[in-house]
Amino acid sequence: MSAAVIPLTAAHTRAVVLLSGGMDSATTLAIAKGLGFECYALAVDYGQRHRAELDAAARIAHSLGAAAYKVIKIDLGAIGGSALTDVSIAVPQQSSQGIPVTYVPARNTILLALALGWAEVLKAWDIFIGVNAVDYSGYPDCRPQFIEAFEHLANVATKAGVEGNRFICHTPLIHLSKADIIHEGLRLGVDYAETVSCYSADDAGRACGRCDACRLRAAGFKAAGVADPTRYQ
Amino acid sequence: MSAAVIPLTAAHTRAVVLLSGGMDSATTLAIAKGLGFECYALAVDYGQRHRAELDAAARIAHSLGAAAYKVIKIDLGAIGGSALTDVSIAVPQQSSQGIPVTYVPARNTILLALALGWAEVLKAWDIFIGVNAVDYSGYPDCRPQFIEAFEHLANVATKAGVEGNRFICHTPLIHLSKADIIHEGLRLGVDYAETVSCYSADDAGRACGRCDACRLRAAGFKAAGVADPTRYQ
Repeated sequence: MSAAVIPLTAAHTRAVVLLSGGMDSATTLAIAKGLGFECYALAVDYGQRHRAELDAAARIAHSLGAAAYKVIKIDLGAIGGSALTDVSIAVPQQSSQGIPVTYVPARNTILLALALGWAEVLKAWDIFIGVNAVDYSGYPDCRPQFIEAFEHLANVATKAGVEGNRFICHTPLIHLSKADIIHEGLRLGVDYAETVSCYSADDAGRACGRCDACRLRAAGFKAAGVADPTRYQ
Repeated sequence: MSAAVIPLTAAHTRAVVLLSGGMDSATTLAIAKGLGFECYALAVDYGQRHRAELDAAARIAHSLGAAAYKVIKIDLGAIGGSALTDVSIAVPQQSSQGIPVTYVPARNTILLALALGWAEVLKAWDIFIGVNAVDYSGYPDCRPQFIEAFEHLANVATKAGVEGNRFICHTPLIHLSKADIIHEGLRLGVDYAETVSCYSADDAGRACGRCDACRLRAAGFKAAGVADPTRYQ
C-alpha cells in the first residue's frame, strides 16, 4: 500500500485518519471509509509501551481498506512524563481521580500536527481522530475546545490554508459512548478482535484486563450487549 | 547536560527554546538567557538535508549556557513535500515568488508541539521560537496569527493548562530585520561563526552561498555593517 501508486479519482476525496490500533481509531477509520473518503491511515510509533497496538493498526488498515498506511516513528520517551512512555512510571491498575498518569504531554497535539503535515502533502483537507466522550473526561486533548483550537491552527499554519483550502478535523466518536462506538463499528464491519486497547498488552496483543483502557473496553462491550472478543493474558 | 541533574532554584524560571543551529534560534536562546530564564534547548532532527545545523545546535547550546540540550528524532522525510526533507525536490538557487519549496508542511506546528510536550514535563510555561519578519513573508507558520493560534491551543491541550497554568509562546525576533537580529545577538555574545543557516551546508557546516537562507544571511550581515563569519564551501 503506497500513496504514490494510488490514483486520485473524482469519486474519492482523501482523508488522513489517525490509527492507533485501538477500537476507537478503528471505528473512526470505518466511519471515514463509510462516508466515501479514500483513507490514508497514519500510525505514530511514539515509544508507547503497548507496541502490540501498532501491529494491530497495520492489520486494521488492511482489513478496512485504507488506501495507504504509514507509521511515523518519534521518541516521546525522550520527553517522558507519562506512564505510557516512561518505564519509571507504573501503569495504574485502578481508575483514578482527575487526569490520569497515562496522559502523554501534548500527545494529541503532536499526533494531529503529524497528520496535518501528511494531509497537506496529500491535499487531503479532512483529518479524522477518534477522540471520544469517555476519554475527554480525563484527557484535556480529547475535548471539543481542543479540536476547535487545532482546526483553527491548521488553517493558519499551512500553505494550503493560506491558499484558501480549509482543513476540517473530524471527531465522529466525540459524543458517543463506548457502547455506541461498538454498535457503529460492528455495523460498518469492524472486527474488534483485531484491535488492542490495553496499556500493558503483551507482544501477542493480549490484554491485561486491569488497566483503565481494559476496564473501559470491557464495560463498553457489556453495555453494548455484545460478546467481548478481547484476548486476555 | 541533563535536565535531571539541574536543580530548579527560585531565581530561575525554566523555558524551552527551539534551537535549529541557525542564527535566528541561536539569537533567540541568547535573548531567553538574557531575560533570566533557565533554558532547555530542543533541537528536532526531522530528516532535514542540512544536518550540519544539528551539530551547530549542540555547540550553541553549550556555549550559550543552556541548562540542557535535547534532540528528538522524527522522520518527516516519510511525509515528504519539501525540498528540505525530500531529496527528489531540488533546493532552489534563486529566490522565488510566494511560499518557497523549502516550506516543510506543518513544520513549526510539529516543532512547537514537541516543545510543548517537553515544557509540560519540565513545568516550563515559556516557550521560545525564533520566527521572524523576514521569514513570515514566505512561511505561513512564521506569522503572528499562527503563534497566537498555537498559544491558545497549548493552553487547552494540556493538563498544565487545564490546571490553571498559562503557556506563553515567545517570538522575540518576529518584528526584527536580519540586521537587527545580528546586532542583538552580538550584544548578547552570540558567536555567529558557530551557526549554520545554509539549506545545503556540507558536513563541515560550510555554506553554499546561493540558497535563500544563505542570501538572507549574507544580506543581513551586510545591512548590519558587520563582518560575515560564515564559512563557505
